[in-house]
Amino acid sequence: MLQQRTFQIGVIGAGSCTPEEADTAYDVGREIARRGAVLVCGGLGGVMESACLGARNGGGTTVGLLPGDQKDDANPYVDIAIVTGMGHARNAIVAGSSDVLIAVGGEFGTLSEIALGLAMGKTVISLRGGWEIPGVVIAKDPKTAIDMVFKLLLQ
Amino acid sequence: MLQQRTFQIGVIGAGSCTPEEADTAYDVGREIARRGAVLVCGGLGGVMESACLGARNGGGTTVGLLPGDQKDDANPYVDIAIVTGMGHARNAIVAGSSDVLIAVGGEFGTLSEIALGLAMGKTVISLRGGWEIPGVVIAKDPKTAIDMVFKLLLQ
Amino acid sequence: MLQQRTFQIGVIGAGSCTPEEADTAYDVGREIARRGAVLVCGGLGGVMESACLGARNGGGTTVGLLPGDQKDDANPYVDIAIVTGMGHARNAIVAGSSDVLIAVGGEFGTLSEIALGLAMGKTVISLRGGWEIPGVVIAKDPKTAIDMVFKLLLQ
Amino acid sequence: MLQQRTFQIGVIGAGSCTPEEADTAYDVGREIARRGAVLVCGGLGGVMESACLGARNGGGTTVGLLPGDQKDDANPYVDIAIVTGMGHARNAIVAGSSDVLIAVGGEFGTLSEIALGLAMGKTVISLRGGWEIPGVVIAKDPKTAIDMVFKLLLQ
Repeated sequence: MLQQRTFQIGVIGAGSCTPEEADTAYDVGREIARRGAVLVCGGLGGVMESACLGARNGGGTTVGLLPGDQKDDANPYVDIAIVTGMGHARNAIVAGSSDVLIAVGGEFGTLSEIALGLAMGKTVISLRGGWEIPGVVIAKDPKTAIDMVFKLLLQ
Repeated sequence: MLQQRTFQIGVIGAGSCTPEEADTAYDVGREIARRGAVLVCGGLGGVMESACLGARNGGGTTVGLLPGDQKDDANPYVDIAIVTGMGHARNAIVAGSSDVLIAVGGEFGTLSEIALGLAMGKTVISLRGGWEIPGVVIAKDPKTAIDMVFKLLLQ
Repeated sequence: MLQQRTFQIGVIGAGSCTPEEADTAYDVGREIARRGAVLVCGGLGGVMESACLGARNGGGTTVGLLPGDQKDDANPYVDIAIVTGMGHARNAIVAGSSDVLIAVGGEFGTLSEIALGLAMGKTVISLRGGWEIPGVVIAKDPKTAIDMVFKLLLQ
Repeated sequence: MLQQRTFQIGVIGAGSCTPEEADTAYDVGREIARRGAVLVCGGLGGVMESACLGARNGGGTTVGLLPGDQKDDANPYVDIAIVTGMGHARNAIVAGSSDVLIAVGGEFGTLSEIALGLAMGKTVISLRGGWEIPGVVIAKDPKTAIDMVFKLLLQ
């Protein structure tokens, strides 16, 4: 029997964020974990940290792809810390390592991850009034976003 | 006397483009060269190739930052071929190595370079109806774009 | 109480290897898992695959840092597949993401990982008659290597 | 008539070096320039700076592939500054962008470039008692090294 590799879902957003964005990221992370997927993110604070906390509370595994060269840069809820030492270029690894990307708000770094994901042919879902680039799918709340993700991955 | 390092100006856009985009890229490249700056680009076809041809005809030097692992992937007008072998991640090197970025049209890869440039605090100028992201400066033609660039660099 | 982040131990070696190297890599991987650490590797075949199989059989978690742009390039025993798309440059991420590196045999790619690890100030342990570069610690068998690793990490 | 792209020759070595290594690097750089090739290096001090000075005095063009994210990190004799922001991973770009590599002494970073070059199938020539890894060609002086390089490139 061929066993499918676990899905890896990227959550992208800024390193500092509003409480509403943090709540959204937390819900997204928790739901990813509950459905048995691995959370991939940039490993730092803000949206990334809230998503990791949600995933950990949901019983899942979290991966942080760090831009710097210190494992300790990772937020406390990162299980696997990948130390790229590559600055902004690590955004391409976030996009490449995610089967689908979910953006929660975000600034230019997030936009670059959205664009890299779209350039790689990935589905990118945007929440919380983030970048509404042509090609991005807009979801109204975390549950809708996650439903979209798994409908896509399981088809 | 301290001699200033030569300016390096990035021209970004798609690997295949319309004749109008090619003309625009050519004009941008030629003007960069005439004013003594180095042209930085992704080294492939389309906008990149037209900009390199323009720069060469303007007597300048062209740098191609290639995504693949073969020097021969470079278009024929690239003088210095940097073989990154890093796929989409090379977009971060295009942004990082350019003092200012000029976008001519472009698709998702170009958008990622725009976003990476803005995330690095660089000025990004867009021509030919490309990505009009908040933070991007719109210029109506190549001459206006180049005038903006040098006004900025020389201030 | 401050909880320590899980140790991440890199196992490096060639994508095709002798049966003896495979056995050694398997033992190293299994022991890493048994002691509660995460196995980091390049995610492909040979030494990497045997180490992943050992770690999985030891009940651990395995991370594969892939040079290509396809998650499916990972060997079947990789739990977390990081898709770098960066070719040889991913060797720097293998070194950077490992608290300690254990080399099992290996060719020039492995040598580059050893050198990058040493340049980053990491301890590198070599098994199975691999590269005996000044700076590398030689271990006579997997158990000795793992004992060295944990003595170092826990001091 | 098909015009051959200009040869790009990498000179690798440590960021601080002995006066003898500096002299050797200078001679290598000057000779690369005199024969019409482009000098590729890591853009910093020591061997890299001396090689760039030699190449500039020989009338050539120099390319510095910088590990950091600031163009101003380049030594004063770098003509084209590529800002990778990728730390040690830029060593793979040095190797990839060089048709042949010449090592002058060097430490672990240099060893990683040698290994990456060999892994990519490049010829690596070592001068000044540097790394004598199997696969590396040893040359007794700069002139011999450069003669080897051009004999190889022009065959």
